[in-house]
Amino acid sequence: MPVQPANPEPAPDFDSMLSRKFGKEVANYFSGSPLNRVGFLRSDHKFLSAALRHPSTQFLLCRDLQPLVDPSNGTKLCWVKYEDVKPVVGEDPYATTEEEMLGLYDSGRYVPQMVFLGIDEKVKEGLEYQGKNKYRGAPYFAIDVTPKSGVKEACEKLIAELEGKGIGFAKGRVMEIEALDDLTISPSSRARTSKTSQPELTTPQAAIYAEARQLLDWNARNPYCAQCGQPTLSVNGGFKRTCPPKDLARAASKTSSGLGNAILTPGAADNTATADESERPPCATRKGVSNLSFPRTDPTVIMAVVNHAGDRLLLGRQKRWPPYWYSTLAGFAEPAESIEEAVRREVYEEAGVHVGRVVIHSTQPWPYPANLMIGAVGQAIPSGETIDLGNDPELDNAKWFEFGEVREALKHGTSGLGDPPGEGYIEGGLRLPPPTAIANQLMTSVVNGFVSGTPNL
Amino acid sequence: MPVQPANPEPAPDFDSMLSRKFGKEVANYFSGSPLNRVGFLRSDHKFLSAALRHPSTQFLLCRDLQPLVDPSNGTKLCWVKYEDVKPVVGEDPYATTEEEMLGLYDSGRYVPQMVFLGIDEKVKEGLEYQGKNKYRGAPYFAIDVTPKSGVKEACEKLIAELEGKGIGFAKGRVMEIEALDDLTISPSSRARTSKTSQPELTTPQAAIYAEARQLLDWNARNPYCAQCGQPTLSVNGGFKRTCPPKDLARAASKTSSGLGNAILTPGAADNTATADESERPPCATRKGVSNLSFPRTDPTVIMAVVNHAGDRLLLGRQKRWPPYWYSTLAGFAEPAESIEEAVRREVYEEAGVHVGRVVIHSTQPWPYPANLMIGAVGQAIPSGETIDLGNDPELDNAKWFEFGEVREALKHGTSGLGDPPGEGYIEGGLRLPPPTAIANQLMTSVVNGFVSGTPNL
Repeated sequence: MPVQPANPEPAPDFDSMLSRKFGKEVANYFSGSPLNRVGFLRSDHKFLSAALRHPSTQFLLCRDLQPLVDPSNGTKLCWVKYEDVKPVVGEDPYATTEEEMLGLYDSGRYVPQMVFLGIDEKVKEGLEYQGKNKYRGAPYFAIDVTPKSGVKEACEKLIAELEGKGIGFAKGRVMEIEALDDLTISPSSRARTSKTSQPELTTPQAAIYAEARQLLDWNARNPYCAQCGQPTLSVNGGFKRTCPPKDLARAASKTSSGLGNAILTPGAADNTATADESERPPCATRKGVSNLSFPRTDPTVIMAVVNHAGDRLLLGRQKRWPPYWYSTLAGFAEPAESIEEAVRREVYEEAGVHVGRVVIHSTQPWPYPANLMIGAVGQAIPSGETIDLGNDPELDNAKWFEFGEVREALKHGTSGLGDPPGEGYIEGGLRLPPPTAIANQLMTSVVNGFVSGTPNL
Repeated sequence: MPVQPANPEPAPDFDSMLSRKFGKEVANYFSGSPLNRVGFLRSDHKFLSAALRHPSTQFLLCRDLQPLVDPSNGTKLCWVKYEDVKPVVGEDPYATTEEEMLGLYDSGRYVPQMVFLGIDEKVKEGLEYQGKNKYRGAPYFAIDVTPKSGVKEACEKLIAELEGKGIGFAKGRVMEIEALDDLTISPSSRARTSKTSQPELTTPQAAIYAEARQLLDWNARNPYCAQCGQPTLSVNGGFKRTCPPKDLARAASKTSSGLGNAILTPGAADNTATADESERPPCATRKGVSNLSFPRTDPTVIMAVVNHAGDRLLLGRQKRWPPYWYSTLAGFAEPAESIEEAVRREVYEEAGVHVGRVVIHSTQPWPYPANLMIGAVGQAIPSGETIDLGNDPELDNAKWFEFGEVREALKHGTSGLGDPPGEGYIEGGLRLPPPTAIANQLMTSVVNGFVSGTPNL
C-alpha cells in the first residue's frame, strides 16, 4: 500500500471561512518550504543514518554560508549526492547513538557541521521509514564544506571537482535582487547574475536555503557554551548544541605538559578533583531545559503605519539608501514586550509618531542571520501624527505619503536596493523595495484597503 | 514650560478605522508596561548616573530572579530607594563612560547585575533630562541582590533589613494563580498568597517584572561569549553583553604562577604574543554587529484551530495536567519558518491535523525565561481533520470540542493550573486556563465570532 504523504502541501489558499473573512494569506519570500522537517526524528540516529545514505538524498553544500549554485542554470541551488560528500563527512557519521556520541566527545576533533533539513514527500522513490508512523520522501541535508582543520583537504578536493564542472559557490545575498519566482526572472537580472554568481532562487529553493543558512550560521556562532565557557557539541541533526559532561581533549591536555593553549577564564574555577580526567566542571545547561541549547531566532517588527484619516502612510529612509528611496519602519522586538507594543515603541523612537491599534499582517523568515520579521499595520492616534526624529536618530528622514503616491511607486518604483528602478519610473518619484520584501507586501495591502475594508486599487 | 510626556499612554482602544474593522486590540497579561524604555539613552552614562541617584527612582530587587514583594500589601512588588541599594552597587557605578568601563574590564571582579527598565512619565517630580529631546519621569531599575562574591555581605545585610520590616522575596511564578488586575483579587487567592508569597501582580506591575526578570535571567545565562568562550561584560543598561578585547584578570593570572583555575578550551588556541598581558584573543563578535551581544527572545506559536465547518475547536492536553483540563496547542517556532508555517507544522506534529489559512490574533511576552507567544487562529482543511498523535507524541490527548462546550468552560471551568475550577463548574466538564493566558483569549475570540464574523455569544 502506498504511503500517504504525512504532510500534504500546506494549503493557505484553501477556501475557508477564515480566508473569506481575512483574505488570502500573504506568503512572504523565504517561507513556503516544500520540506516536512519531521523534527521529531532528529534524535533518531537510525533514521538519520538511513537518510544520509539513501540514493534519493540531496545535499546542499555551503562554504562560509554561501550555497553551491549552478551559474549555467539561472543560478539555482545545486545539489550533490552521498558519494560526493562521503570523503568529507565519513562513511556513516550517525552510526552511534546521540548518547554514545556524547561519551566520545572530543573538542579537539573538528567535525564538519551537518544539518538535517527535512524530507520532500512528493518524491515517490524516497526513503521509507517506519517511526511511530510511516514516512516517505527524499531527505535533504546541508553540509558546511568550508575547508578547515581535519577536513581541509577533503573539502578542497570536492570543491575543485565541482569547479571543474563549472559549479561554484554563490556570492552576495539572495534577495538583494529582483523579486523572483519561476516565472518572473527578468532577462536583466539573469545577465547580472551570471556575472556575479548572486543567487536567484525560486520560493521553495529560497526557503530551503534559509533553513540551511540559519542553522549553519547558528552552529558557527555558538561553538562555546554561553553559560560556562566550554566547547559544545552539535546534536539533533544540527538543531541543538549540548554542553557535554566529558571531553576527551581534557584528558589528553592534562597528561601532556602543554597548558599553552588554555584560555584563562577566571570566573569559572575548576577545582574538582575527579577520577576521570576527561570530566568537565558542572554546567547549568545540563540540568533541565536551557534555551541556550536551541537555535536562536530574533523577532523583529516591521510596520505600515497609516494616519488617523486613513489616507497616508508613514515611511522612513536611511542615509545610505539611494535618493527618493523609502520603506516602512522596522526594528528588533525587545525582551518582555508584545509585538503590538514593540510596533508602538519603534515608531515613537524612530519617528515620534504615536500609534494606537496594531494588527499583525503576516510574517517572514529572514536568515541574515536569524530574524523573524513580523509585519504589522498600525494606525496613528489623531494627536500623535507629528514626526519627530529627535529620540533615536536612526533615520535620515520620515514622511507621510499619500496612498496615491505609494500606489504609483508600487507600480513603477520598486527594485532591489542596488538595482535601477522599474520601467516607467520618473526621476524624483518615490522608490520602494521589491515584492520579495515584506515591506512591499504591507504597503500593497494598505493601499488596497486593508485598513478601511474598501478595496481601493 | 512643562515637559510633555514623550510617550503618552499607548492607546490601542482609541477609536480608529483599524479598531472598527478588526475590533479592540487584545492586550495580554505581561504586556502593557507603563514605562517608556527610552532605550536610546541606555548607552548614555551621564543619563544612567543621574537616573540611578534621583530621589524619584524606584528599584526592584530580585534574588534568584524572584522579586521583592510586600505580603501585607496583596503581594505587590515592593520598591526600594537609592540609599538602600548604594551599599550593593556603589556610589555611582555609571561614573565612567561605557568605553572607559571596557578598558577597565576585570573578569575576576563580580559586579551585581543592574538593568535600566525605563521611566514613568506620569511622575511629575521625576528626573528631567535633556538628550536630543527633553525627557521627564521616575526612572526604574532592577538589581540582582543574590548574595554572592564581593557583594555577598552587602546583599545579606540589605535583605536582613528588609525582612525585619516583613518584606521578602516572592516564591513561585506570577501567573500560576488567578487572573488579576487591581479589581479582581479574590479573597481566596489573597489568603493563599499570604501563605506562599506567590506574587499577585496588576497588569502594569507584571509587565515591569517581566522586563526585569527576562533581562536578569539573560545576563545570568550568558556570562561567557558563545563565539569564543571568554567571559563577557554587561553594558547598555543591562541590554547588551560585550566581549571586551582586554581583561585585567588575564594579566594578573599570567604574572602569578597559578594556572590551576584555567578551563581547557582546546579549540581556541591563544598563541598571540602581545605586549599587553591583559589583551585577549580576537573574537568575531567584536567586528560588526553580532546578535549574540543582544538579549534573546524565543518566538513561540499558540493557536486556536477550528474545523472547516467553523463550529469546533481543536484542544490538547498534557499528561501532567489535572483531569478534564485542555488548552490550545503550542510550540516553539523553528529557524527560518514563518509563524503561519510554524502553526501548520506544530498542529501537524502534535495532532496530525492539517491547517490552511492562519490569522495572527495577538501576542504575549512570557518571561519564563524568554518567550514571545504569538497567538493565532487557524482553520483545518476539510481532508485534514483526523487527529493522529503518532508523529510527535507530546500530547496525552487531542480532541475537537464544540463551541458550546468551550463557551460553557470559559464561564465556569477556568482557573490556574494548580487551583480549583471556578464557581458553577460541574465535575467532568471541560477545564481551561484563566484569562491571563493567551490561550483563553484565543478561545474566547473564536467562540465569539472571530472566524465567521457573526458574534456568537
